[in-house]
Amino acid sequence: MKNPPKAPKRLAVLVSGSGSNLQALIDRTEDGTLPVDIVRVISNVPGVYALERAEKHGIPVKVIPHGQYANAGEFSQAILEELLRCQADIVCLAGFMRILTAEVPLAFPGRMLNIHPALLPAFGGKGMYGHHVHQAVLDSGTQFSGATVHIVTEEPDAGPIVLQKIVPVLPDDDVESLAKRVLEVEHEIYPQAVKWVAEDRLIIKGKRVAVKED
Amino acid sequence: MKNPPKAPKRLAVLVSGSGSNLQALIDRTEDGTLPVDIVRVISNVPGVYALERAEKHGIPVKVIPHGQYANAGEFSQAILEELLRCQADIVCLAGFMRILTAEVPLAFPGRMLNIHPALLPAFGGKGMYGHHVHQAVLDSGTQFSGATVHIVTEEPDAGPIVLQKIVPVLPDDDVESLAKRVLEVEHEIYPQAVKWVAEDRLIIKGKRVAVKED
Repeated sequence: MKNPPKAPKRLAVLVSGSGSNLQALIDRTEDGTLPVDIVRVISNVPGVYALERAEKHGIPVKVIPHGQYANAGEFSQAILEELLRCQADIVCLAGFMRILTAEVPLAFPGRMLNIHPALLPAFGGKGMYGHHVHQAVLDSGTQFSGATVHIVTEEPDAGPIVLQKIVPVLPDDDVESLAKRVLEVEHEIYPQAVKWVAEDRLIIKGKRVAVKED
Repeated sequence: MKNPPKAPKRLAVLVSGSGSNLQALIDRTEDGTLPVDIVRVISNVPGVYALERAEKHGIPVKVIPHGQYANAGEFSQAILEELLRCQADIVCLAGFMRILTAEVPLAFPGRMLNIHPALLPAFGGKGMYGHHVHQAVLDSGTQFSGATVHIVTEEPDAGPIVLQKIVPVLPDDDVESLAKRVLEVEHEIYPQAVKWVAEDRLIIKGKRVAVKED
């Protein structure tokens, strides 16, 4: 007797801005390469374009403005409640600009992901977000950057690395040209990493991650 | 009237061990792709295999044992004197395991190079030498490492980056297998970087380096 077909994993995406990585995830679910249902898009900022993208594709949205909470712990609790309410199996941070306290990643062990616009562990941690990352990369003189999908743990940008891809840093690059090149590979690797999580294929040992054969 | 042919630049190489990067430099001078004369190999350790490699190829060697000097400053002074005595234009550190005080790099501005077995600025600085580098790379879970040729300045591993090349970190890697893969690209990029310096083709702005067209 065959096993009954499994229901697709339920994905929630947390955003704060334009949501181009959200769009990449949506596109890959719609073309069938990413076998998940995006069940909720949660923003801490009202009116951002990511919410519009979600609505265009019929995905329920929720705005949880961080300013309405006394501290990061209470805000994180509200996020966690919404993630439980929508019965998310997997959570993706996609340009989500607030740091969540530990109870959120602890509720989704190995199933909460973030994407960072550099080759972690380089150019991660405090202050390393958005264009600050690319400026630091350029200032360092390194000839390569890239993007990193990692599992979210209590420590920002320090969880196990699931997938990375390299881009060159060119002599004439500025923040904008480098950001654009990195963003392109973000859109490639984030859906791929989510797919592996959805298929339960990650083997995590310490900070090293291996991927089981399909 | 044509300019008279220029004498090839004079290269001195500082070693402490087996000297596989020295060998790569020797091989490229002998096959004509690296247009320099290796005029001296200086070791701070007697009897290392790098000295034997030099002698096999008729390159004068000098041993300057660091233990015979009261401190890093006096040792560095002895190194500098030998570099001036052999009229070196360019200096390569090739597995040289002592830190030199600032007067040595200052005497060879933009013409003293080191090679580091990782993608600087990641995995550089204090304690990051030899196998410690590869162990740290493996422990971090990053999926890429590589090698970096940089200009030596007062601050260890922090000078302008001349050339980098990537290698993958594989799930089954240990220090030995990763070191071997990185060493192969070291042997490729070090002679290339020295060639650019010998041809006066580097344009250094802050920590960013561009290479003039041939």
